[in-house]
Amino acid sequence: MTEKDFSQGAAWMKGEIMPIGEAAIPVTDWGLTHSDITYDVVHVWDGRFFRMADYLERFERSMEKVRLSVEQDREDMRRILHQMVGQSGLQRAYVSLVASRGQPSVPGSRDPRLCENYFYAWCVPFVWVFLEEVLPRGAHLKIADSASRISPNSVDPTAKNYHWGDFTQGLFEAKEAGFDNTLLLDSDGHVTEGPGFNVLMIKDGKVSTPRQGVLEGITRKVAMEICAHHGLEVAVDDIPVEQFLEADEVFATTTGGGPVAISRINDRVFSNDAPGEITRQINETYWQWHNDPAMSEVVDVNY
Amino acid sequence: MTEKDFSQGAAWMKGEIMPIGEAAIPVTDWGLTHSDITYDVVHVWDGRFFRMADYLERFERSMEKVRLSVEQDREDMRRILHQMVGQSGLQRAYVSLVASRGQPSVPGSRDPRLCENYFYAWCVPFVWVFLEEVLPRGAHLKIADSASRISPNSVDPTAKNYHWGDFTQGLFEAKEAGFDNTLLLDSDGHVTEGPGFNVLMIKDGKVSTPRQGVLEGITRKVAMEICAHHGLEVAVDDIPVEQFLEADEVFATTTGGGPVAISRINDRVFSNDAPGEITRQINETYWQWHNDPAMSEVVDVNY
Repeated sequence: MTEKDFSQGAAWMKGEIMPIGEAAIPVTDWGLTHSDITYDVVHVWDGRFFRMADYLERFERSMEKVRLSVEQDREDMRRILHQMVGQSGLQRAYVSLVASRGQPSVPGSRDPRLCENYFYAWCVPFVWVFLEEVLPRGAHLKIADSASRISPNSVDPTAKNYHWGDFTQGLFEAKEAGFDNTLLLDSDGHVTEGPGFNVLMIKDGKVSTPRQGVLEGITRKVAMEICAHHGLEVAVDDIPVEQFLEADEVFATTTGGGPVAISRINDRVFSNDAPGEITRQINETYWQWHNDPAMSEVVDVNY
Repeated sequence: MTEKDFSQGAAWMKGEIMPIGEAAIPVTDWGLTHSDITYDVVHVWDGRFFRMADYLERFERSMEKVRLSVEQDREDMRRILHQMVGQSGLQRAYVSLVASRGQPSVPGSRDPRLCENYFYAWCVPFVWVFLEEVLPRGAHLKIADSASRISPNSVDPTAKNYHWGDFTQGLFEAKEAGFDNTLLLDSDGHVTEGPGFNVLMIKDGKVSTPRQGVLEGITRKVAMEICAHHGLEVAVDDIPVEQFLEADEVFATTTGGGPVAISRINDRVFSNDAPGEITRQINETYWQWHNDPAMSEVVDVNY
């Protein structure tokens, strides 16, 4: 057996664990050519999966919503993730679960019911959706002028998906204007989300977050639990952008970094151009909870 | 050199021509994980590419629109397609050109400007978007209730893309109700397009086709040229679904089959439940034009 290099990550495909660089999907797979695919991302922090059950449950719901059905059940996936991350040796990892439509058994058919769906997984070193150097000063977001968020009437954002054309457009616009990231509105001017993160606002001690046109983020869910834990009221509601910009504090939530303070949106400055006090508390509790055995589990290559 | 099997198609990737089954893209490529990718499809019919220049030009425009830039210019791509299809031996082929974002040079970065974009191509035996057995009776379409077409304010449909979540939803709905395919409306109730095809209507001898929320199809363009050739007036305009359903004849246009008569949409029957006379003439001219050297070129493996 040759020694394989897993330093850049690992993948599980069709029963085999391989270095991430070897994992690929066919150019004719509908997961690619129709973006007919759903995924989820769980993270490993200091050798422990965080809230794995929540991620596996959401992934299963996403598959149901887009009518994907794979061979592996929730417990199979849990085992695969433990073995794959365990074998990679990564202590802090960004771990993807993916279900793809595959290809039709009848060549040339356009009937999605004739495809054999399949599951795969991969992990890479932990990804910070907002770079670590951004965290002390808070993230700077630009509201996208060039694209509005894909409507839930077209693509269901609660089934986690790779339809990022709107985000990519917004990212180019934001990066070119010197911002860290983009924030998209819906066609009615409500705040939605950014690429890979939800947003929350705090006004007069009350927390609120957009109701529709967004992924129901697990990190957002955890942040809301933390708010309740600290006695803060939380509402999930439609938020016009004007109202959002009147917040005392604003933060993003992402599996790739947890609750992250936002200090600027366009030319609006929040919480003295630094992470706000409530956001800092939420962030602190978030990372503390990672050691709670009720919320995390040690990566076990022999699971 | 071992004999390779190209009967299922071929691909060109990074300078190498390989059997289609060997062509794959990395699971971490943004072309997949952000559907940050554009493509085009040209076809080969009886050993000749049809209107290649039009397809190459549109592909270049698509790349510009989504800010993808690849090493190969138009002439390189033409050569690659000739060599790849030539080597495959396919006489009738569905030929894809693809440009993908790739991956950022800085691992974990979310900045699309840091990615190395790349081109690849593949071909498979000719794909009929509407099955051949459907053609004599005309296609049956169901207007999607479950999804409206992704808005041009979110993703530009004129840059040919793999954002098919809305189409897939519509396809499931249509197939389960016994229809051949789906037709999507925009949020204002205007007719847009289906997965891989434009639609045109004929009313009192005048032809019209949707103006926005659609790909500017090359086969649609050719069909409009044929209409002009036959002295038919053509308009590109917003078409409310009610107006569309009042047509005398309706047809689809796709690189995967040319102009295809539509005989039913929901419970509305067109042109006596069979291909209409004008549509049949357009279809006939379309296939005749395939032998015109001004519009086609012989596949040349030594190009």
